[in-house]
Amino acid sequence: MSPLPTHMTGVQLTGHGGPEVLKLRQDIPVPEPAPGEVLIRVAAAGVNNTDINTRLGWYSKEGNSPEDAAWTGRPLPLPLIQGADVCGRIVAVGEGVDSGRVGERVLVEPCLREANGQELETPWYLGSECDGGFAQYVRVAARHAHRIESPLSDVELASFPCSYSTAENLLSRAQVSEGDRVLITGASGGVGSAAIQIAKDRGAEVMGVAHRSKWDVLESIGADQLLDRDADLVNALGVNSVDAVIDLVGGPAWPTLLEVLRPFGRYAVSGAIAGYAVTLDLRTLYLKDQTLLGCTVLDDGVFARLVQRIESGAIRPLVAQTFPLEQIHEAQTVFQAKQHVGKLVLEIPD
Amino acid sequence: MSPLPTHMTGVQLTGHGGPEVLKLRQDIPVPEPAPGEVLIRVAAAGVNNTDINTRLGWYSKEGNSPEDAAWTGRPLPLPLIQGADVCGRIVAVGEGVDSGRVGERVLVEPCLREANGQELETPWYLGSECDGGFAQYVRVAARHAHRIESPLSDVELASFPCSYSTAENLLSRAQVSEGDRVLITGASGGVGSAAIQIAKDRGAEVMGVAHRSKWDVLESIGADQLLDRDADLVNALGVNSVDAVIDLVGGPAWPTLLEVLRPFGRYAVSGAIAGYAVTLDLRTLYLKDQTLLGCTVLDDGVFARLVQRIESGAIRPLVAQTFPLEQIHEAQTVFQAKQHVGKLVLEIPD
Repeated sequence: MSPLPTHMTGVQLTGHGGPEVLKLRQDIPVPEPAPGEVLIRVAAAGVNNTDINTRLGWYSKEGNSPEDAAWTGRPLPLPLIQGADVCGRIVAVGEGVDSGRVGERVLVEPCLREANGQELETPWYLGSECDGGFAQYVRVAARHAHRIESPLSDVELASFPCSYSTAENLLSRAQVSEGDRVLITGASGGVGSAAIQIAKDRGAEVMGVAHRSKWDVLESIGADQLLDRDADLVNALGVNSVDAVIDLVGGPAWPTLLEVLRPFGRYAVSGAIAGYAVTLDLRTLYLKDQTLLGCTVLDDGVFARLVQRIESGAIRPLVAQTFPLEQIHEAQTVFQAKQHVGKLVLEIPD
Repeated sequence: MSPLPTHMTGVQLTGHGGPEVLKLRQDIPVPEPAPGEVLIRVAAAGVNNTDINTRLGWYSKEGNSPEDAAWTGRPLPLPLIQGADVCGRIVAVGEGVDSGRVGERVLVEPCLREANGQELETPWYLGSECDGGFAQYVRVAARHAHRIESPLSDVELASFPCSYSTAENLLSRAQVSEGDRVLITGASGGVGSAAIQIAKDRGAEVMGVAHRSKWDVLESIGADQLLDRDADLVNALGVNSVDAVIDLVGGPAWPTLLEVLRPFGRYAVSGAIAGYAVTLDLRTLYLKDQTLLGCTVLDDGVFARLVQRIESGAIRPLVAQTFPLEQIHEAQTVFQAKQHVGKLVLEIPD
């Protein structure tokens, strides 16, 4: 193997704002793996909502302030290489890691319990509290680099980590199992389309909310029933008709989600693309004994189960479009236009 | 034992509205226990918020409409004898029930899984979907009449069922255990003061929100820290400083409850005295991986645990005032004035 270069190409987030704060650079030092870490040559990296939310300062409770701009409510370390979805190959290992892992094809678990050779008190996200995959090299704790055996391409594999593990985590916390009726909002997005596939694999009956133009694709991946984004869910489905809701949308129609959810039903959320401030009727929540579950940090075992589902072919990638890394602005513009179904993936230059 | 009378004194709810819809009558037929039921001579019955909510039609989503006035969203059977808190003695048994139970002193589990000799598809509440304890006699399934051995008076025992089982259920669902920091809103009310005692018995550190005039009593039953109702909880406690919230209040300050609740913290609710429509920031819920639990129907084992806590002396009654049944209007007026701490109890006439 040729020696590693000293510098690499990557995209740095330099502040909060529009696409212009993302800067392509060729002179970023290649990171050194710390003890317990591996260094990965990134082949492809998926685009996620969280990259854009973070760039905009959407997570801030103080009005897009840099003081609490990260999902954790703390400021970001800038400049920052974003990118939570990494497929690549291990090219070097830090102290204490089996050098036999060099050459492994890996998917990176984006929710980090360990970094810089130390257990973290509270979890990090790859590309948020530390540099991520929008560059030629990334370092992570060895335990988070999962070996994967698959005939899928690097781009296809890079479409999985963040969305599909989030979906698996939502469905797992909501205890979705055989025979459950599950309603998924934002069903055409990365997490939504992942949730359709994984819910079907868990034996559930799946209803998705998405724009009519996307219904064909969503049927092809297993949705049993599709509803328009402006449908009145109470009229369409009936009160107390759903066992679990997987919500990525929030917004003004949010209260109807709890109306259609049955007593003792479970609601799980990991996004709020249509608006984070919703009106909760506490009477609905308590008189129906419902459970609302926020889902960001991955539970133990979620990522390993995802890798198994990929290797067994139980789920398949849904790549809408690819872009070279240097076209990250275009990729994010397409992402925000929401005309696609599934994932957009960046290819990392040689 | 003298034969049972054919008619009894009781208070009937005759419609939705002010206190005037509660009518005292002397000519109500004494109920017959169905198969599997016991007939109880009521000695005392506690006053609860749910009686007043139901009378007013507060549970209605259609603006105090009788069409969905019960907590279940269905109309009430009228006229109805309310009263979810019953202490009394078994005076007769229905077919299939051991006649040796006649004479037992009992507390009634108010959340009913069985009625009229049949398993219920969805649970009922005593005094809501069927006649309750604001009368000389009440019939319930034998399994819901729990024998109790205690030196406490009938009035003291009647202060426990609804509030304390609700509190036990809230704390159980919120998994409150040794060393947890728990915040309780509405801490001076029936459920709130019960939750203080039970949370302490579970080994938690308890913080209560209540009017300053009630702090002395709440300290005497175990509250470790007390906060004023208009305190800024984020300033007083800090963000992410609380393991669990037990909420009975809701209202405009609701969002701060999730701010002080730590990541992976649990919020449990069974009332909304300051307002049911609250603003939920979905970002807080999902980025902090919190769980919100609505709690009305009692989980299995909750009432039996409550009876054990009473019999062992681990919790003690907090009776603020008693009234004869015929003064139910006055009792509800005092209840709504919220100047008391703990429970108001009605004594049933001989």
